[in-house]
Amino acid sequence: MHNEGTMQGFLFPRTATGRASLIPSPPWHYSGDLLTVEYRTDPERVAELLPEPLTPVPENEDPGAVAIIWADWQSCSDSAEELLDPVRAQYKECFVVVRCAFEGRTYSRCVYIWVDKDFAIARGLHQGYPKKLGSIHQTRPHPYGKAAPRIAPGARFGATLAAADRRLAEVVITLQTPSDTAGFVNGHPMAHHRFLPSIELGQPPTLDELIESGGASFEGGQAWRGTADLTLHDSPAEELARLEVREPIAAYFRQVGVVWNGGKHLA
Amino acid sequence: MHNEGTMQGFLFPRTATGRASLIPSPPWHYSGDLLTVEYRTDPERVAELLPEPLTPVPENEDPGAVAIIWADWQSCSDSAEELLDPVRAQYKECFVVVRCAFEGRTYSRCVYIWVDKDFAIARGLHQGYPKKLGSIHQTRPHPYGKAAPRIAPGARFGATLAAADRRLAEVVITLQTPSDTAGFVNGHPMAHHRFLPSIELGQPPTLDELIESGGASFEGGQAWRGTADLTLHDSPAEELARLEVREPIAAYFRQVGVVWNGGKHLA
Amino acid sequence: MHNEGTMQGFLFPRTATGRASLIPSPPWHYSGDLLTVEYRTDPERVAELLPEPLTPVPENEDPGAVAIIWADWQSCSDSAEELLDPVRAQYKECFVVVRCAFEGRTYSRCVYIWVDKDFAIARGLHQGYPKKLGSIHQTRPHPYGKAAPRIAPGARFGATLAAADRRLAEVVITLQTPSDTAGFVNGHPMAHHRFLPSIELGQPPTLDELIESGGASFEGGQAWRGTADLTLHDSPAEELARLEVREPIAAYFRQVGVVWNGGKHLA
Amino acid sequence: MHNEGTMQGFLFPRTATGRASLIPSPPWHYSGDLLTVEYRTDPERVAELLPEPLTPVPENEDPGAVAIIWADWQSCSDSAEELLDPVRAQYKECFVVVRCAFEGRTYSRCVYIWVDKDFAIARGLHQGYPKKLGSIHQTRPHPYGKAAPRIAPGARFGATLAAADRRLAEVVITLQTPSDTAGFVNGHPMAHHRFLPSIELGQPPTLDELIESGGASFEGGQAWRGTADLTLHDSPAEELARLEVREPIAAYFRQVGVVWNGGKHLA
Repeated sequence: MHNEGTMQGFLFPRTATGRASLIPSPPWHYSGDLLTVEYRTDPERVAELLPEPLTPVPENEDPGAVAIIWADWQSCSDSAEELLDPVRAQYKECFVVVRCAFEGRTYSRCVYIWVDKDFAIARGLHQGYPKKLGSIHQTRPHPYGKAAPRIAPGARFGATLAAADRRLAEVVITLQTPSDTAGFVNGHPMAHHRFLPSIELGQPPTLDELIESGGASFEGGQAWRGTADLTLHDSPAEELARLEVREPIAAYFRQVGVVWNGGKHLA
Repeated sequence: MHNEGTMQGFLFPRTATGRASLIPSPPWHYSGDLLTVEYRTDPERVAELLPEPLTPVPENEDPGAVAIIWADWQSCSDSAEELLDPVRAQYKECFVVVRCAFEGRTYSRCVYIWVDKDFAIARGLHQGYPKKLGSIHQTRPHPYGKAAPRIAPGARFGATLAAADRRLAEVVITLQTPSDTAGFVNGHPMAHHRFLPSIELGQPPTLDELIESGGASFEGGQAWRGTADLTLHDSPAEELARLEVREPIAAYFRQVGVVWNGGKHLA
Repeated sequence: MHNEGTMQGFLFPRTATGRASLIPSPPWHYSGDLLTVEYRTDPERVAELLPEPLTPVPENEDPGAVAIIWADWQSCSDSAEELLDPVRAQYKECFVVVRCAFEGRTYSRCVYIWVDKDFAIARGLHQGYPKKLGSIHQTRPHPYGKAAPRIAPGARFGATLAAADRRLAEVVITLQTPSDTAGFVNGHPMAHHRFLPSIELGQPPTLDELIESGGASFEGGQAWRGTADLTLHDSPAEELARLEVREPIAAYFRQVGVVWNGGKHLA
Repeated sequence: MHNEGTMQGFLFPRTATGRASLIPSPPWHYSGDLLTVEYRTDPERVAELLPEPLTPVPENEDPGAVAIIWADWQSCSDSAEELLDPVRAQYKECFVVVRCAFEGRTYSRCVYIWVDKDFAIARGLHQGYPKKLGSIHQTRPHPYGKAAPRIAPGARFGATLAAADRRLAEVVITLQTPSDTAGFVNGHPMAHHRFLPSIELGQPPTLDELIESGGASFEGGQAWRGTADLTLHDSPAEELARLEVREPIAAYFRQVGVVWNGGKHLA
């Protein structure tokens, strides 16, 4: 007698026990350090990344603002078992966020993102983050020795992104002062699409769903504000460099703890 | 004026031009070497991996047969541009196939698969392969020197699979004779599920679609048959070792060229 | 007119400018977190790793004591430029230390070590560490969120080592109390061999030098002591598992800053 | 009673059994595919990479000729056991060769080289190749499917090199005709330095030895000649781009089998 509709596992591969699932069920917990660089690009370059029914934010709300964010994470499920086998808990990511409007509300939207583990790709499938693999590095603060900045005025952090053996972005951030915020571009609920083409040629997509999600809870340390020297590089397989830097806004460092636990269907 | 429903790209990230899409549109072309190991496990262990409405094949059709297959691929879209930037064309995979029945027809079904590139993960999303990242290696034949087997009787090939820094499978295959087939377990159209949970907690899955697909065209060299010494290792995050080796069937080597170009919705 | 004896660079490749050297000149600065696990193995297994003129420490000085240490580092030269391109500064390592005696003095000696960057391999050539590549992970403490331990009683850290797609060691450490030390096995100057075979077959080694080195300066935070559950796995290409765990001693966590700046020739 | 001068192993880590040595004793066997691109650069840029007592080849012997070579290898020791655990046998490399003269004889000399495995780095230590880690890819020929060239006129091969997340070189080669040679720059015995600084600051190098080595035996298939479109990229940690392309010479493809079995001390 075979399995009768009892496949287990939050995501594939689904099995009788669910143990092999690439990711466990939410909630998902994250502890990590964020480096955020905000700048202005041509607002048209932002607008062209917003599918209907999303619209750009109004002219007077800085529609060309972009945040590129590096994050060095540990993450786990409620069991926290991944933390004791840290190859399954640690990952790094670099992602690009713009803002948009939907039904009169402002949302953040991740338009590009690179991560370095498969479980992070899988979470992105669920959350609507358009994840690719990349090689991501960011300077870590440390309290001892000369091989790390302290978290203090003048501290300098480097961060880089590469994919397919090409460097796509690099930045040097210099901290200046404590800050009330860690930026404004990534500060709204996320409006993301979950998309999958039809398996049949020429048919409409099987899935093209607009969802909303955001952190279920958040804690963080003192945010710091500073300046950034950001360079984007072109690649035949990427379009990040189209979001060219017209005007720097600011850069931020913050250590945070976040919980993610589902979202809602919008359209 | 912003983008009006003209987002391009076969998969995410979708943009105005489509250039950044993680994968281009099918057809997808593959050239590579396959090592196939077939064996019998407990038929109940196969059955428990088959969600309704799939059923095991009948008792007299070897329902416990399993194929574990290593493949060393180059792949590209119709443009073939990936072949000239081979980091975007080359990948390796190890996958596990069983058979099942649906509406009176026999299908093959991939129950586990590991690959080493993100574009291969992305194709699997579309095709219903439950892909994880792994580290996959297989001996390559070569016509010169002592550091490779020739394709001939007595040739020996090793193949290994690891994920999350644990070795999951290893095999040594010894070729014996030319063969009319390269096995029977992976010889049917694939019956796969495409699955995505609801973004809302406690709701039914957003996507749980049964699809069929297979090669749009195929060419291959002489298949070879031989013997295999296969070992599976357990891991806290995998269930491959549940498909324990009860009885070896045979092993095969074959060089092939394949085209994939879509499938069809079954249920 | 060509270069007349003016090749620059601390190590290969040496060039007219020295810029391409795999590593810059010392001093080398390190900031990082250390997880140390001390245990007793069969003293004969330690002794067999000590070439003449080194001898084991006396029976009453715990000659079977072994330390296996995980470290998560940032490192840089005096210029500190690597810190702003952190792919060139960050690396992880796992290394195994025993003690020995030479001319009446006790030394520590690294008998096995795995790192994950080439610049770390290169420093090891200079310092006499027998480095291989590995995949090394250790839990990081973090002040926010549930995906990291705080540095406090009960904090649990996992650490793993793999090489050639096989897991070689894994440990879970639980912190108990602040400690005056971070262990005793790795507490002496290092006595290492630098070894290179003759390019000519059957000739004595070109280099077989005994050297001493140690930190030029050190600072560190509060050390913590706890317990460890360590497992070693065998591999056809490794001998770590010969240093079998007979009796646990203790485990330690400490954040440190270290400078290395040369050593001296012993024999 | 401890080990009395009986440490085993061709290279570190040396042990009582020798099993853990990063590499086994020569002879070393190689089977693989070579893509060679030859071009002329400023002869002064070649000369500045030649330490005394090496001199450039004479003006009438093309002293600015450079070969950049991609190789996709399997390799093993006499036991050939590595071939059945192919993660220990397969590696790729990209290396740059110039010519020089010593005591009236012409030598080839590898001035830069990147590999992707630690055992390949270790062999380079012995042979005097100045190896770094890199990410190396080259198109593979295959007899079936559209995702690979056949070895024939018009076949196109791409090859790329990256290190530290930056692309350093990329080429597209188009085969034209069978050829009697696979180039002239890498056709001589190699004259390499083996170099290690003193462990003591300010002292002369411990090792600065000029050696000669070459293949102990060789077999190969038909060489093919064609054209190449080569681009070199700069990096803060590399000097490859100083060997700028002034004039293309030719490009070659060849499948080879090679044995290496020691060399001799020159100076």
